[in-house]
Amino acid sequence: MISTISTLQRRDLNHVWHPCSQMKDYEELPPIVIKSGKGIYLYDENGKQYIDAVSSWWVNLFGHSNKRISTALANQAFQLEHAIFANFTHEPAIFLAEKLAEITPDGLTKVFFADNGSSAIEVALKMSFQYHMQKNKPNKKRFLALTDAYHGETLGALSVGGVDLYHAVFQPLLLDTVRAQGPDCFRCPFNKKPDSCNTPCLSFVEEKLKVHHEELTAIIIEPLIQAAAGMKMYPPSYLKNLKELCLQYDVHLIADEVAVGFGRTGTMFACEQAGITPDFMCLSKGLTGGYLPLSVVLTTEKVYAAFYDNYETMKAFLHSHSYTGNPLACRVAYEVLQIFEEEHYIEQIEEKGAFMKELASSVFHHQSYVGEYRQTGMVGAIELVIDKETKEPFPSKDRVGYQIYQIALKKGLLLRPLGNVLYFMPPYVITKEEIRTMIDLTNEAIQQYFDNAFVKGGA
Amino acid sequence: MISTISTLQRRDLNHVWHPCSQMKDYEELPPIVIKSGKGIYLYDENGKQYIDAVSSWWVNLFGHSNKRISTALANQAFQLEHAIFANFTHEPAIFLAEKLAEITPDGLTKVFFADNGSSAIEVALKMSFQYHMQKNKPNKKRFLALTDAYHGETLGALSVGGVDLYHAVFQPLLLDTVRAQGPDCFRCPFNKKPDSCNTPCLSFVEEKLKVHHEELTAIIIEPLIQAAAGMKMYPPSYLKNLKELCLQYDVHLIADEVAVGFGRTGTMFACEQAGITPDFMCLSKGLTGGYLPLSVVLTTEKVYAAFYDNYETMKAFLHSHSYTGNPLACRVAYEVLQIFEEEHYIEQIEEKGAFMKELASSVFHHQSYVGEYRQTGMVGAIELVIDKETKEPFPSKDRVGYQIYQIALKKGLLLRPLGNVLYFMPPYVITKEEIRTMIDLTNEAIQQYFDNAFVKGGA
Repeated sequence: MISTISTLQRRDLNHVWHPCSQMKDYEELPPIVIKSGKGIYLYDENGKQYIDAVSSWWVNLFGHSNKRISTALANQAFQLEHAIFANFTHEPAIFLAEKLAEITPDGLTKVFFADNGSSAIEVALKMSFQYHMQKNKPNKKRFLALTDAYHGETLGALSVGGVDLYHAVFQPLLLDTVRAQGPDCFRCPFNKKPDSCNTPCLSFVEEKLKVHHEELTAIIIEPLIQAAAGMKMYPPSYLKNLKELCLQYDVHLIADEVAVGFGRTGTMFACEQAGITPDFMCLSKGLTGGYLPLSVVLTTEKVYAAFYDNYETMKAFLHSHSYTGNPLACRVAYEVLQIFEEEHYIEQIEEKGAFMKELASSVFHHQSYVGEYRQTGMVGAIELVIDKETKEPFPSKDRVGYQIYQIALKKGLLLRPLGNVLYFMPPYVITKEEIRTMIDLTNEAIQQYFDNAFVKGGA
Repeated sequence: MISTISTLQRRDLNHVWHPCSQMKDYEELPPIVIKSGKGIYLYDENGKQYIDAVSSWWVNLFGHSNKRISTALANQAFQLEHAIFANFTHEPAIFLAEKLAEITPDGLTKVFFADNGSSAIEVALKMSFQYHMQKNKPNKKRFLALTDAYHGETLGALSVGGVDLYHAVFQPLLLDTVRAQGPDCFRCPFNKKPDSCNTPCLSFVEEKLKVHHEELTAIIIEPLIQAAAGMKMYPPSYLKNLKELCLQYDVHLIADEVAVGFGRTGTMFACEQAGITPDFMCLSKGLTGGYLPLSVVLTTEKVYAAFYDNYETMKAFLHSHSYTGNPLACRVAYEVLQIFEEEHYIEQIEEKGAFMKELASSVFHHQSYVGEYRQTGMVGAIELVIDKETKEPFPSKDRVGYQIYQIALKKGLLLRPLGNVLYFMPPYVITKEEIRTMIDLTNEAIQQYFDNAFVKGGA
């Protein structure tokens, strides 16, 4: 059954193949045509307003069409839109690299640029591998990743992912990654609480390290939140202890802060909370405040030195994209970091996050199908379950999250759940009043779905 | 020996790890700090002007800081900088997709967005593979690529590359690609001329197809010019006959037009010259006129249909990047296509290309160390050889191209050769007078290098 659709929707469907979509779903839910954005809101072709509660896939920090950022971008465009980045450089890249080296954990001093999160992961994987080759450890050619991990969708990045939805079909094309069971605080196999446990689940990683460390070049991890897995959160102590294991077994640690960087977890970077410096830190998404694709990999002098030699030794790290170090994206990213500092956003996140946590906890905890409301920094997640005691999940074929997503859209709220997990990751410009509206609308959408499901005899 | 360097250069070297660079080379040739760009020129911190003869890695089409494109970008930034592209859309993406479907070879109607060339290649590889899986051909899980091919540097893209410089060290991480010897018109193993041969070298591909077709999902190729290999050019008939082989052996054809698309070869897309429609066409670089990272994969209704089904069948193509369909980049790309049409750039390329070819041929053909000057559209290449008769190449350790590059930079010309091949791929706004200057400066740089080399007793 095809809904009535607008001319623009028809034109879209004629030619656009959307990401992360079964296009047949668009027969029932045609693509919403966004005309403009302002603050936390997106406006469609009919003037309808949507609260962008997911920051458009976790990228927007300071609101849509932010005047200050747009002005910086426009000025840069009229001065220098782009220049080759091999043997050439420019102020936006220099200033950005300098600032990133300053604000990331101590010891991360070298900045390698790429265009998106996946590419950053590929850079880190390749760099770690080549490092060990050049240190005469050619056996180190495998990676260790956690179950339920998500690190992007180019084949290298996908190889270290653990969410079946994205990688199962492509298995024959992927690297043979060593996989260790990751933390699962909501359904803890040790029946511990995340704020008091001594991370017994890290033993899953240690077991793999014991067996495989000689062939492992790096462990890759999403610090504090396994985002695509359904905003699975775990404590900083896990990271801290993991870093020690890496040192003990001579394996690099790659921190994929693509989703969690830039304040999402309450600190500028998630690694800060564990007080660790990874060997590689990958950043993207919030890096440009939701404006443009750009990513970076930060690493140490030690890694850099292993590639620094006379040309003939062929030790250079070769990985380039045409737009590496793009001045427009770098200029925007630098403006974002200035806004962060000048407008004290870490403090704002602390305050708004506390407000969101208190309100959301009180609203959702007593709901019948909410197994847990959890929050880290400004990331809040509602995990829906069939039974609060057994924590039995809804079967994925029911698409419970997707149904609630559709109801919420009608109410002017953009949620985009991950399976049975609804989550909030709003732009930091959100006000307390808007946080309240976002939570209320979400609650209404959940209620409406389950009321309706009962009538239909489902759930 | 460290040259005197500016404060900005020092700040750059403290933190920036440049792409495609042995950073130790920067001790002798510190990064040039570009402050602004205009037309074909880049200006450094001392006001020195450089002709950007390589369009900053083959991306710029209509000059640096183009007023019309910058204005379009600025306006878009103040209206809608970005929105999630799953279930959402916007006019810049719709208009761009529509226009691309219109101007690319018949039958390419569906447009999938990504951020850079490598990501587009990954999308095409994954899509082709999944297509065959869903058509019950699970044995089709390998790709065929040509020797000397370059398709990007994420691990999937790198797997189908054939330039040792980029992939040799990473071999243990790469897919087991079937490799066929590609065309080599300059050193033709059959002693034919490209404009009159009947592509006997295609037999190298056919032999591989005969043996491997049942396990092959796709052949990937750079139409008409193997760019990173040193601007190796071959005739359209090769492509045309290759397409027939693909049909005969039931293997997809992926046309990687990342470097050659958007007029570089004289027609809007290189495939046009062969009159073929590939199953997948990858575009990037010139797509945004040199402004922003953006890429697309165009494919057919037949491919699209194989993924279009009820959600539960799990046939959807899942590949997403946060900034997929970025409105800023799409708006810029749409403006680029309008400029192309309104300002009749295909005609301009024809005229300017003819002028460049005549002049460059006359200047370079009688040079002692120039084995060949070849040109396709607006891509001209000078292949340096030790001996014009034997075509013996200079050993790569001599870095002849790199030495000439340095001399040219001093003269205000940015060449960035590929090994022993110097090439021109200038922005299309270049005037005939500027073409003359570019050729003259190149000639002077070559002369100067060899004069000097003789004095030193080299070459």
